[in-house]
Amino acid sequence: MTTSFPMNAGDGPYSFSKNSQLAREVLEGSKEMVRDAIIGKFDIKTMLSSSNTLCIAELGCSVGPNTLIAMQHVVEALKDKYLSQIMTNSTNNNLEIQVFFNDHVTNDFNTLFRSLPIDRSYYAFGVPGSFHGRLFPSRSIHFAHSSCSIHWLSKIPKELLDEKSPSWNKGLIHYIGASNIEVVNAYFAQFEKDMEMFFNARAEEIVQGGMMVLITPFSSYVRLMKFFGSSLTDLVNEGKLDESLVDSFNLPMYFPSVEDMAKVVEKNDCFSIEKIELTYPKSKLVDEADAKTLMINLRAVLEGLFINHFGSEIAKEACERTILKSEEISTWMKANYEKSCQLFVALKRN
Amino acid sequence: MTTSFPMNAGDGPYSFSKNSQLAREVLEGSKEMVRDAIIGKFDIKTMLSSSNTLCIAELGCSVGPNTLIAMQHVVEALKDKYLSQIMTNSTNNNLEIQVFFNDHVTNDFNTLFRSLPIDRSYYAFGVPGSFHGRLFPSRSIHFAHSSCSIHWLSKIPKELLDEKSPSWNKGLIHYIGASNIEVVNAYFAQFEKDMEMFFNARAEEIVQGGMMVLITPFSSYVRLMKFFGSSLTDLVNEGKLDESLVDSFNLPMYFPSVEDMAKVVEKNDCFSIEKIELTYPKSKLVDEADAKTLMINLRAVLEGLFINHFGSEIAKEACERTILKSEEISTWMKANYEKSCQLFVALKRN
Repeated sequence: MTTSFPMNAGDGPYSFSKNSQLAREVLEGSKEMVRDAIIGKFDIKTMLSSSNTLCIAELGCSVGPNTLIAMQHVVEALKDKYLSQIMTNSTNNNLEIQVFFNDHVTNDFNTLFRSLPIDRSYYAFGVPGSFHGRLFPSRSIHFAHSSCSIHWLSKIPKELLDEKSPSWNKGLIHYIGASNIEVVNAYFAQFEKDMEMFFNARAEEIVQGGMMVLITPFSSYVRLMKFFGSSLTDLVNEGKLDESLVDSFNLPMYFPSVEDMAKVVEKNDCFSIEKIELTYPKSKLVDEADAKTLMINLRAVLEGLFINHFGSEIAKEACERTILKSEEISTWMKANYEKSCQLFVALKRN
Repeated sequence: MTTSFPMNAGDGPYSFSKNSQLAREVLEGSKEMVRDAIIGKFDIKTMLSSSNTLCIAELGCSVGPNTLIAMQHVVEALKDKYLSQIMTNSTNNNLEIQVFFNDHVTNDFNTLFRSLPIDRSYYAFGVPGSFHGRLFPSRSIHFAHSSCSIHWLSKIPKELLDEKSPSWNKGLIHYIGASNIEVVNAYFAQFEKDMEMFFNARAEEIVQGGMMVLITPFSSYVRLMKFFGSSLTDLVNEGKLDESLVDSFNLPMYFPSVEDMAKVVEKNDCFSIEKIELTYPKSKLVDEADAKTLMINLRAVLEGLFINHFGSEIAKEACERTILKSEEISTWMKANYEKSCQLFVALKRN
């Protein structure tokens, strides 16, 4: 079994559903590309050769408005494609769409279900389970979408925690900022293994000619996580937190480069890359108020992990201290914002 | 929109997931009949003519072990049928099964998902929404199952609450025990309307030749609800509860007879009755300890409704007083137990 790392549940002040502007930014950055992939590359006629139903998988949906907005975009693009490719030859408009919202069994599906739009034009389903394994029957999915999810590793490579290993990640909570290349290699090796499982499962589930779109978060937002690391270091220096507890904690995320992604896709010969592209953020989230919002967003993502490892008191203190660093963070953002990018990949099942 | 009446959530002492022996009894009473319907009447060869996947809908799943046990029975029977009808002519054993667990959006799907067996041999999905409306695409379900659910009405007929109506149900919380036939008629009229919507939706969703099994609870268990009514009357007599609050409360449940059921099925000409049968309980739940268990079971079902209408203090007091009547209830059970029955209907989509 793989480990799960759910976002903060419910709809309280630090819940993911109320603090997902970061993920929204990623979504906005990929909206047109998802549409272009569907309009340009998705062969809806072949997909509907034996039925009138399209099945969409949303992998790693979490909660909150973003997954619903993303699915709305996908459904609208599919309908437009249907109208242009099918309806020109027919007057029989009876397309039906199923959307399967997937996430770990620990995800807050109750909140997700209660936020589904009443007037949605698709049938909605929840699918509990890890997307590193099988979720759907063979050849049952026509289009899969995953935004801000595949960078979550199924587990932390053991060697990062082993002081006898060359990959020991002493004093840090992630490979970002690590000078030891072995740390990065250990993270990538885990990502490769996870993606192998991911692609093997999707290769069975997605019909021939079906598509999958994968989107990772903006890199500068990702790097903001280091400020949580420095808050933990502060707590160590003040004697409030044992150093070994920081040494034994690593964030289970790997952010692939274009080359990394191409490599993991090529290992599985069932998918071909239709498009792989870096995009840069349109909005400017760099002033102090923005920095604070971004850090509260990251808190909603990370706090559960911190609580599990450090206990709720240290987790709360580390999060609150990090949010107070908004001036420093704003300065860092101004210097690094332009370089921020997200990775977009559109794949087709051969 | 229809109203929903969720069972007590979570897994606390009065949760439905910990107090569903009543529903289990119903399940045990129908287990062999469900199996017989599948083995004897389900044409799995036709169902699998265009794919290797069978889709099962569990309508009104609630939470707790019963829905999982019921689906395990159905899946095992389908596999046995597959082995006998298909595998005799083939060595290609690649049947895949999808189970769609449906209930209102207010159902505790988080608890349900966390209780799914790790080693299940089917793909599991949650489907939030009222089964009085559409839940699935056209012709996408092969077998539907609903136990202890269709007796829930989508709403209370207004006239039961109207003191100017001949159907005013003064002083009672249900039609059971009502001497006024207009009360029963108003309940049945609502049941007919609900079942019309139910069958219209299922007629679209279930493939031709597909089957549906409907099971209602044992009647003596149902009649136990009157003891909750008498606890509320006691509270009125003691001046702790306003009489008009009891007058304005009615339990939203109708328990169809064989004739009622035949009538609502016949109104929709898409289904034919393969079997309709009353069954009687095998176990003897009649002593005082049993009576207490049964009343705690009913509490898990009813408490939410009481809280909504009477507030949590009165709801708690009415429930606790009723459980204390276990001696009286046991006496009543001894006299009525043998007459208890449940209704089983197996239908085929024409």
